[in-house]
Amino acid sequence: MKKPATDDELVFLPLGGSGEIGMNLNAYGYGPPDARQWIIVDIGVTFGREDSTPGVDLILPDPTFLEGERDNIIAIVLTHAHEDHIGALGWLWPRLKAPVYATPFTAALVREKLRERGLLEKVPLTEIPLKGRLNLGPFEIDFVTLTHSIPEPNGLAIRTPLGLVWHTGDWKIDPDPLIGETTDEAKLREMADEGILAMVCDSTNVFVEGTTGSESDVRRKLTEVIGKCTGRVAVTAFASNVARVETALFAARAAGRTPCLVGRSMHRIYHAAKGIGLLQDAPEVIDEEEAGTLPDANVLFLCTGSQGEPRAALSRIAKGDHRNVSLRGGDTVIFSSRVIPGNETAIHALYEDFLSRGVELITADDHFIHVSGHPARDELKQMYQWARPRIAIPVHGETRHIREHVKLAQALQIPETIAPKNGDLIRLAPGPVALIDEVPSGRLYVDGSVLVEPDDDAIRDRKRLGADGAVNIALAVNAKNAVVAGPNVSVRGLTMTDDEDMELALEELERSAEAAYAKLSHADRSDDDAIEGAVMRAVRKSAEKLWRKRPLVDVSVLRL
Amino acid sequence: MKKPATDDELVFLPLGGSGEIGMNLNAYGYGPPDARQWIIVDIGVTFGREDSTPGVDLILPDPTFLEGERDNIIAIVLTHAHEDHIGALGWLWPRLKAPVYATPFTAALVREKLRERGLLEKVPLTEIPLKGRLNLGPFEIDFVTLTHSIPEPNGLAIRTPLGLVWHTGDWKIDPDPLIGETTDEAKLREMADEGILAMVCDSTNVFVEGTTGSESDVRRKLTEVIGKCTGRVAVTAFASNVARVETALFAARAAGRTPCLVGRSMHRIYHAAKGIGLLQDAPEVIDEEEAGTLPDANVLFLCTGSQGEPRAALSRIAKGDHRNVSLRGGDTVIFSSRVIPGNETAIHALYEDFLSRGVELITADDHFIHVSGHPARDELKQMYQWARPRIAIPVHGETRHIREHVKLAQALQIPETIAPKNGDLIRLAPGPVALIDEVPSGRLYVDGSVLVEPDDDAIRDRKRLGADGAVNIALAVNAKNAVVAGPNVSVRGLTMTDDEDMELALEELERSAEAAYAKLSHADRSDDDAIEGAVMRAVRKSAEKLWRKRPLVDVSVLRL
Repeated sequence: MKKPATDDELVFLPLGGSGEIGMNLNAYGYGPPDARQWIIVDIGVTFGREDSTPGVDLILPDPTFLEGERDNIIAIVLTHAHEDHIGALGWLWPRLKAPVYATPFTAALVREKLRERGLLEKVPLTEIPLKGRLNLGPFEIDFVTLTHSIPEPNGLAIRTPLGLVWHTGDWKIDPDPLIGETTDEAKLREMADEGILAMVCDSTNVFVEGTTGSESDVRRKLTEVIGKCTGRVAVTAFASNVARVETALFAARAAGRTPCLVGRSMHRIYHAAKGIGLLQDAPEVIDEEEAGTLPDANVLFLCTGSQGEPRAALSRIAKGDHRNVSLRGGDTVIFSSRVIPGNETAIHALYEDFLSRGVELITADDHFIHVSGHPARDELKQMYQWARPRIAIPVHGETRHIREHVKLAQALQIPETIAPKNGDLIRLAPGPVALIDEVPSGRLYVDGSVLVEPDDDAIRDRKRLGADGAVNIALAVNAKNAVVAGPNVSVRGLTMTDDEDMELALEELERSAEAAYAKLSHADRSDDDAIEGAVMRAVRKSAEKLWRKRPLVDVSVLRL
Repeated sequence: MKKPATDDELVFLPLGGSGEIGMNLNAYGYGPPDARQWIIVDIGVTFGREDSTPGVDLILPDPTFLEGERDNIIAIVLTHAHEDHIGALGWLWPRLKAPVYATPFTAALVREKLRERGLLEKVPLTEIPLKGRLNLGPFEIDFVTLTHSIPEPNGLAIRTPLGLVWHTGDWKIDPDPLIGETTDEAKLREMADEGILAMVCDSTNVFVEGTTGSESDVRRKLTEVIGKCTGRVAVTAFASNVARVETALFAARAAGRTPCLVGRSMHRIYHAAKGIGLLQDAPEVIDEEEAGTLPDANVLFLCTGSQGEPRAALSRIAKGDHRNVSLRGGDTVIFSSRVIPGNETAIHALYEDFLSRGVELITADDHFIHVSGHPARDELKQMYQWARPRIAIPVHGETRHIREHVKLAQALQIPETIAPKNGDLIRLAPGPVALIDEVPSGRLYVDGSVLVEPDDDAIRDRKRLGADGAVNIALAVNAKNAVVAGPNVSVRGLTMTDDEDMELALEELERSAEAAYAKLSHADRSDDDAIEGAVMRAVRKSAEKLWRKRPLVDVSVLRL
């Protein structure tokens, strides 16, 4: 590896995932301050919420800063295939246009995403074998095998002329992960002996004492729980946890049940897993129609929708709306999953729907049938003992996780620590770790087919429409500025207790519009903007009195 | 007490709170099946949610069944002043018109609600002293002092010719509640000796092992925590927990800080509490302007908004939007509250806002500075041991809580148990407990000034507007069915990446509208409904292509 030039620096720049859980995007820069070369590590999404971002499917990190550095981006390197690490690629790649590197399972899922966005032929995607090495300009990257809740979780050992950065990605220490190898401890010790300048590390479970537990313990318990069920059984889990999917398939066979996948992402991940040679010993799955013909005691449905997502399989089954799958008294739903904070209400509503049909529920509160994929405190301590970095940089957490992780690293005598937030440009070398700049960072919303900034009028208007409804007014005005038709008034999302009151309300709005027009000066009557403004204000005022709401009022003046 | 007639029955009817936490409404009926007399116990609300019910402030139990029984309703009896027990009174009283009974603190808060709705002079509201007795037709009701997280929590001993019902309301066993007396154990034993037919009991914390803990332990810890703070301190707690408010006021004084209330409900409850003689020893509070003039170390703000409610004091302070109160690095916010399930996201966003300003956070995860007001399992067991009812009827819980509570009662050898859901008409006597009918039940939404049914078009349309936006089209058509002006197209809540694309999109929608009109037959062109339908369908299709969204399309035809 070449020697660093005198003004070379190594910098770290988180643009997503530091100050939030989800939407991970990190960049490493190397070179003199005015001519850095960059690699991007992961490029993920978070999901829109019906309350704060209605109609928004996905939320992406704002890539504006990196877009300006586009010519200097050598690569986008992906650690693993979870949506919060790869989900933004199809949306943001056209702005960044760098070659992409990933291990086979991740690459299979990435290809599908790119195909959906019409980018499959455009994006140079290189598959790297597990434990492979990549040489990218000043960066030499080793993929290091870890354990997590998805096949092929990799940490990245990023070697530069100014030192070695250990970027963990998402991990836990699972002594028996069922799919994939255990944590590559030998490699970690070897890296530590070489000397790790900085460790950039997962903070998700820093508030959880002890250790996380193993996927194999879940397998034992889940198999036992499924074995005791009578009637139909539906298991819900994250599709990307292929070891868990395999457990459900094995447990089905052991219980004399034929498994049936329900939900699009179950099929998608199942096929991606088969494609890299996983799930070879698992029983074949049948389709939903065929499952419907089997006796209750001989079928197991493996479903998406553990978070109560309204359009997912499980919610439809709970409401009795699913085309092929129905559950009733004597049947059981097993949640082999956790409750992601913020989803409590949706999940409890799902529970209610099932319980009101007499369906039994079994959750991770009842039995050890789910385990986290992120390191609890004792695992973090173990990682620090293995890696012994000079600098600890916690990422992948809300501010409170990152702060707590900094405290933990300090308690473990790590010489330098820093709590980054998105947009912080942090110099790792030379010299002590330091925040040297703040660059633009933020979020973009995937709003139907369009990328929108959070402060866009459209988003603000939709929240208002959702809460307060709309009033639309149209009127036709002739060349002499006389109203010759209308005002026509219609309302959406507003109601009255009975039809008569509604009639009266519409008449009241119409009168307000007419009165507002009547009050306009002659000059204003030839100015459509003036008419629209005056009518809008008058109608809004009337609507506020009628409904105690502030609907959006849209006025259309048709000129003859 | 008179002897029962041969066909007299005693029935219990939950219409809110059985199958959900919140919105409690229970009724007891006595008499022959065709001529029952009713008392209503509590009449509460739950709160609307931005995701499932945007724009809906409150959710009420649907009173339709009781409205039909209006002439036979003797009384509305309130156990305590929490919103989920009294909040619907101002909205539903006009449909029920029965006299209302409550203890002094509850009555004070009820009067304020009635004043807001213009009902203060209309509603006969009778104050009952603590441990008072009410004679209401066949019902003789004793108010029994319990402990909870608000002043004056009462259970109701409802004596009838067919037996005694023990309606607990909300309770815990707090050996040192700080405000109010301890649980009236003597009365409970006396009732048990008399023989309790049925106990209708709080299920909120049935999944919590052990006991809840005492408000006095919180006082000690919170005082200690506040004492250690430097800089400004803001404490957030539920205003209705007057003991907690008193703790904050005492702790402020002990720490040399002057307390300042921030948020409307803090003031409201503070004055209601003073009005019944509470908080006499607490230091005086100052207003926000005055607090701003004090040194940081000499002020304590007691704020509403512990659940991250966007318009409450704490959210405004967190965003730096509060008129009089600001916090910065070195200041501390203390959450003396729990995270109500479903509010995680809002509360964590609040944490982020404060942490990003360098404000320290202290929550109930860090110290014992909050305690629940509902009984954990050991308290439930104690209550069953005291009351020894023949029938256990768990209420105040989701279905899973109620089921678990039934299991607990069975394990405690209670002879009869039943798991009710809203609308179940349950006969308590004579004979064994039995579900004898199901009556209409459901929810009503307070939508601005109007009460709306959940399946109202307005609610459905608003959710669609919130997610997908609106397109409005207006066109003027003359007597010969020629379009003489328009179509004018406007969109709300929809955007494009740049203005040029937006222009093109609007033109595309306009062309769709024109083409749809051009395709209409001569007959259809004289039919406004036909025009609106055709234009609407064509424009919606174009909008779906442009945005991959399904906006609401409103078409207005102006006839000349």
